[in-house]
Amino acid sequence: MFVRFALSAKLHFSREITPEAVEAIETAVQEANRQLFRRGTPSGAPEEQIGRITRWQVNASALALDIESGPFTRAHDALFRFRKHIAQVLGRYRLGVREISIAAFRITMPGPIPDEAIPKLPFIRQVRRQDGAVELDLLFSASDLEGRVPDRLVRLIEEKKEALTYGGKAEHWELIYESEQRPRVYAGDPTQEMIERGWIRHGASRGQWIFAPQAVHLFRAFEAIVMDHVIRPLGFSEMVFPKLVPWEVWMRSGHAKGVYPEIYYVCTPKTRDPAYWEDIGDYFKVTGVVPVEEIRKRIDGPIGGMCYAQCPPFWPFVQGETLANSCLPIRVFDRSGTSHRYESGGIHGIERVDEFHRIEVLWLGTAEQTIAIADELHEAYRHIFDDILELEWRSAKVTPWFMAQEGLVGESADAAIGTRDYEAVLPYSGTWLEFQNVSVNGDKYPKGFNVKIQSGAECWSGCSGIGLERWTAAFLAQKGFDTSDWPETVAKLAGEPQEIFTFL
Amino acid sequence: MFVRFALSAKLHFSREITPEAVEAIETAVQEANRQLFRRGTPSGAPEEQIGRITRWQVNASALALDIESGPFTRAHDALFRFRKHIAQVLGRYRLGVREISIAAFRITMPGPIPDEAIPKLPFIRQVRRQDGAVELDLLFSASDLEGRVPDRLVRLIEEKKEALTYGGKAEHWELIYESEQRPRVYAGDPTQEMIERGWIRHGASRGQWIFAPQAVHLFRAFEAIVMDHVIRPLGFSEMVFPKLVPWEVWMRSGHAKGVYPEIYYVCTPKTRDPAYWEDIGDYFKVTGVVPVEEIRKRIDGPIGGMCYAQCPPFWPFVQGETLANSCLPIRVFDRSGTSHRYESGGIHGIERVDEFHRIEVLWLGTAEQTIAIADELHEAYRHIFDDILELEWRSAKVTPWFMAQEGLVGESADAAIGTRDYEAVLPYSGTWLEFQNVSVNGDKYPKGFNVKIQSGAECWSGCSGIGLERWTAAFLAQKGFDTSDWPETVAKLAGEPQEIFTFL
Repeated sequence: MFVRFALSAKLHFSREITPEAVEAIETAVQEANRQLFRRGTPSGAPEEQIGRITRWQVNASALALDIESGPFTRAHDALFRFRKHIAQVLGRYRLGVREISIAAFRITMPGPIPDEAIPKLPFIRQVRRQDGAVELDLLFSASDLEGRVPDRLVRLIEEKKEALTYGGKAEHWELIYESEQRPRVYAGDPTQEMIERGWIRHGASRGQWIFAPQAVHLFRAFEAIVMDHVIRPLGFSEMVFPKLVPWEVWMRSGHAKGVYPEIYYVCTPKTRDPAYWEDIGDYFKVTGVVPVEEIRKRIDGPIGGMCYAQCPPFWPFVQGETLANSCLPIRVFDRSGTSHRYESGGIHGIERVDEFHRIEVLWLGTAEQTIAIADELHEAYRHIFDDILELEWRSAKVTPWFMAQEGLVGESADAAIGTRDYEAVLPYSGTWLEFQNVSVNGDKYPKGFNVKIQSGAECWSGCSGIGLERWTAAFLAQKGFDTSDWPETVAKLAGEPQEIFTFL
Repeated sequence: MFVRFALSAKLHFSREITPEAVEAIETAVQEANRQLFRRGTPSGAPEEQIGRITRWQVNASALALDIESGPFTRAHDALFRFRKHIAQVLGRYRLGVREISIAAFRITMPGPIPDEAIPKLPFIRQVRRQDGAVELDLLFSASDLEGRVPDRLVRLIEEKKEALTYGGKAEHWELIYESEQRPRVYAGDPTQEMIERGWIRHGASRGQWIFAPQAVHLFRAFEAIVMDHVIRPLGFSEMVFPKLVPWEVWMRSGHAKGVYPEIYYVCTPKTRDPAYWEDIGDYFKVTGVVPVEEIRKRIDGPIGGMCYAQCPPFWPFVQGETLANSCLPIRVFDRSGTSHRYESGGIHGIERVDEFHRIEVLWLGTAEQTIAIADELHEAYRHIFDDILELEWRSAKVTPWFMAQEGLVGESADAAIGTRDYEAVLPYSGTWLEFQNVSVNGDKYPKGFNVKIQSGAECWSGCSGIGLERWTAAFLAQKGFDTSDWPETVAKLAGEPQEIFTFL
């Protein structure tokens, strides 16, 4: 049993097809079935698995074709191969192909295929089950076929079938390192105490905080530690990555495959002509209400979203380039703005927020260089968490973040590629909080953004996100608010909490 | 000639109105016209300018009323005053007011009023011109009337009429200070040269740049100068302000009055259930196209927009609070993320961008304190631009930014309130670039966010935006790229430009 493709198409020519041309078509069809469609197929492939024209008919200026295939020289590939061939042949009769129309397209896949493995897509017109196989009637344009949409549809169904068959492949989690246990000096929920002490206050949007100087001092102390023990010694240079991310970036980074539930979407005004918007402002001035539904009609997009993962918008900087061997590995970082995720509702502390602040470290080079830098980072982080922050923490190999953000579970095929999470225990709840990670992403991004290396070696990249809210949550949960309990470096860098607001 | 209001309303009672109650209504109406509606009106106000019930009628459980007024005890105010009164009177007969319905509402304004002064709003059902006056038939609910929508509508029409009558009041601009001229050492467009040198590259979205280390070194040099000569000596403390701004904030800050043409709007997913989004990801996987129109149907909002002015989202931190005298003035700043404005299309350099980086300085206290800090800032900035950056610059009093962002021109009524722009000459074009500002905003924000001072003094605030892209544009346009031409402090802080990428 194998996948089968069948299509009916019409090639529309520039003028009526003459009797001599019809003869030439007859010959061309025979040649195509005998030779043209066999090219590139595995030797010994059974004839019924290879594309062939099963019927053809001339009507005025149109040539109607039925093509069937198994997995080799698939019907749509055969169509375009034949189009090229017949264009040459009929050129002699001054007949040119003007257009291709697709009257029918059917894919038959061997079963069993669960219903849930068939995606809900607008061009799937009918799904039939026949002797255990599944027949899909599809509405495709010639450009869909040229864009290889049928192949990707088959692959998607196979992936879904596999995911359903082998059940929810579990989120991967494999312990790599575990620190020593630390004495418990504090048992509270740090978010609660930060609120009470006036260090933070809810922002006006959900999952959003406003941080007062006491909290920011801690952020900046952590940032200073990262600068002194990671950024400078390992030679990372600061860049500024954009924070509004259009689809073009997520299409190449792979996020367009599955990140939709968590995005804060961004839309643009249809025009910036003030006259177009005057009545909206007037409505607010008169009623005190912002007319959201009316605004909705006057905006375009969404054009993308607010920064979600911090590194994808870096990549247009190197997109389409070949990097000189001499400049590798490239080591950069960004700390220029916020990330936003539409998290599940309800009340969370600063350890789970919709808007957060992260230092994002990014590097690229050969596979060896990329892996070596990840190892250097692991060592630098171990030193920070063991010797400077004196945390109780562990690290674990997990499902790579780029797979998770595409809605996948399990782990990467290549053992060198993957994400390592750093987790700290929260004594007040007994749970572990992921507070940062390090990932080797293989060639995913260089491939997506078409980045090459001079030597021809495969270009790899890695990234590491340092979450300031999460560091703060982990640190305060373990060390509490009495600065005399804090490790010396942190206490010195943060200073005594500075209370500048006094509310009556 | 004066503005007139006329309405027809029905008060619906809990049960049929008895004959005794009808008598009591008769007395109440007479009393209301004679006394109740006169309360609080100017003595000597002509009778026809004061609200009165011109007709009433009982039908089963409903009392129908026609009320007319001039500017005093306006018809809708009279309605609610009478409602309260009649509720007391008829309480004795065990009749309670259940509901108020408005059958008609008319505003008549004396002319001449140009057509363009009448806003386009959904509750304006008809506009008639009668002997030079304008009659507006309006569709209002009782809660619109309780919310004083008619009054705000009249004020809006008067404002529009005034703006049209006195013509486009010009953007205010008044020179305050002009530095000495500086020798011209560079005549190029710095954006162009930064691109050529690989310091910056276009991001994937419009008006957006990715900054390489060479440019970021300059950003950080400027930031260090601001820290050393403004933030630390003047005692500002760092906070972190949110960067997603919901309507609730812009409704209080006044931006909801007119900022719509330039906002990057933010929408949220209708749900974060992955099953709801699965076919969207599938569509992309199969076609390589993000189905924007389909996504549009599955998002809510807009809930607000990306950060536009940087200080409004601070204010929920102090909203509704009374500040102790002892903690004033409050001095804070934020540098935690990007601002976004939908600027007019076309190609601009880094001096005009859709996404930019700013250090925002904010202070609040009494009027005297607020003005004094603005003066300290002006002095600190003068020192930086004259003695450290050695720029050719000037400052000018301009239309206050909060007026501009509400779509207003001209200047503030109070001379102490306003915005001072700092402008630097761009030798390559001969134009002046606004590269930062200082504003005293009066009581606008404290009032909008309901912030009070213990002593009872009026609470004022100020803010100052330091644009890193704009400083860079101004500095490079005047000083060029040869670091030996740069003032010593900048050259030392920025170091030699660090080229880390080599593209073939």
